[in-house]
Amino acid sequence: MAADRIEGLRARVRQFAAEREWDQFHSPKNLAMALVVEAAELVEELQWLTEEQSRNLDAERRERVRLEAADVFIYLLRIADKLDIDLVTAAADKMVLNERKYPADRVRGDSRKYTEYD
Amino acid sequence: MAADRIEGLRARVRQFAAEREWDQFHSPKNLAMALVVEAAELVEELQWLTEEQSRNLDAERRERVRLEAADVFIYLLRIADKLDIDLVTAAADKMVLNERKYPADRVRGDSRKYTEYD
Amino acid sequence: MAADRIEGLRARVRQFAAEREWDQFHSPKNLAMALVVEAAELVEELQWLTEEQSRNLDAERRERVRLEAADVFIYLLRIADKLDIDLVTAAADKMVLNERKYPADRVRGDSRKYTEYD
Amino acid sequence: MAADRIEGLRARVRQFAAEREWDQFHSPKNLAMALVVEAAELVEELQWLTEEQSRNLDAERRERVRLEAADVFIYLLRIADKLDIDLVTAAADKMVLNERKYPADRVRGDSRKYTEYD
Repeated sequence: MAADRIEGLRARVRQFAAEREWDQFHSPKNLAMALVVEAAELVEELQWLTEEQSRNLDAERRERVRLEAADVFIYLLRIADKLDIDLVTAAADKMVLNERKYPADRVRGDSRKYTEYD
Repeated sequence: MAADRIEGLRARVRQFAAEREWDQFHSPKNLAMALVVEAAELVEELQWLTEEQSRNLDAERRERVRLEAADVFIYLLRIADKLDIDLVTAAADKMVLNERKYPADRVRGDSRKYTEYD
Repeated sequence: MAADRIEGLRARVRQFAAEREWDQFHSPKNLAMALVVEAAELVEELQWLTEEQSRNLDAERRERVRLEAADVFIYLLRIADKLDIDLVTAAADKMVLNERKYPADRVRGDSRKYTEYD
Repeated sequence: MAADRIEGLRARVRQFAAEREWDQFHSPKNLAMALVVEAAELVEELQWLTEEQSRNLDAERRERVRLEAADVFIYLLRIADKLDIDLVTAAADKMVLNERKYPADRVRGDSRKYTEYD
């Protein structure tokens, strides 16, 4: 049985914190703050671009965005680990709710009804 | 060969948007905005709790946090999909940088040197 | 009649952008992104501190927080200017709504009912 | 001598919290979390609009944006009050730094050099 890639990553991030004795700082409250900070750093890379430019990043900016997305993912995994959440299951559960909330036939191509997934 | 769970989820989120003709709204710029909004909704669940309380959530709040974490993950997958980023590889690459930047021997238990992962 | 201090600041920020021909980038959408980025930079200064430590900042961090708060204020003034919003009036209007929503007698000292101002 | 409008607002927000015995929750750390949440709620109003649409809001959305901007301002004033920061002075000090960092002659109309005010 092959280990899931995301599980391997979660274990690695956990070990990283343990080796540095950083668990004392990693309350879900603090990790949520770190998460929103990293998400904002991703926003910062794109804020002055047009939407079109954001779809066609040059290699340098794309790499910076890639690493910012990585930071968001790392903190998200850390929160999930602390609260014993399986992210893939949680997202699958949420997609069921989203599919119910936004029936394809009713919201197709409509930005007025498209507010957000939640 | 078993498909990776995260890949299955990415495909499902992609199909969800396609069926609703929402790709037109899903520029990386817009998705980054949605991402930070979802991250903030997770923050909102924890902002008035003490750190200790955030480590011991009641079932109801834990479930809300779980679904907010799911929203963050869904938008993060969406951005990754649009920019052809493999999140697990990106996070593994970032962990290498983090391990170099924060040598365990030098930063152990030290919140002064602990600013952030990036 | 003395000009209001906040009005003087608003005019100065407007001139700063005009002299640099940055109005083209200052759509409310982009400015909102910049605003959340600056708010996150303020969060970043406090994220690993305890609440108690955040109440007793050393001089160096307090100055960094002061300048991050300034950045938030500058972008908030910029959005307000672009949308012809008077911030002080808007906040006064919002306080009326808050006073109605959170009657002092019912919510006193109660963090459960205290979710947020909005 | 006419009292400054912003000072009157700051006092009112302070009293609002005092009457509800909410100062116990209003550590700078918690207030920073609340601030970024409110900033994200403003982002949420604009995230699926084009930049052009965000410059031409209909009356209903403009009013929602106005009240979200008010929430950001209220929490910003609250942080400033707790840390004994004068926001107008702080912003004026920051503008001096910005004017030095972004000389008009060098950055005019240039989005590449325009990363952010900070």
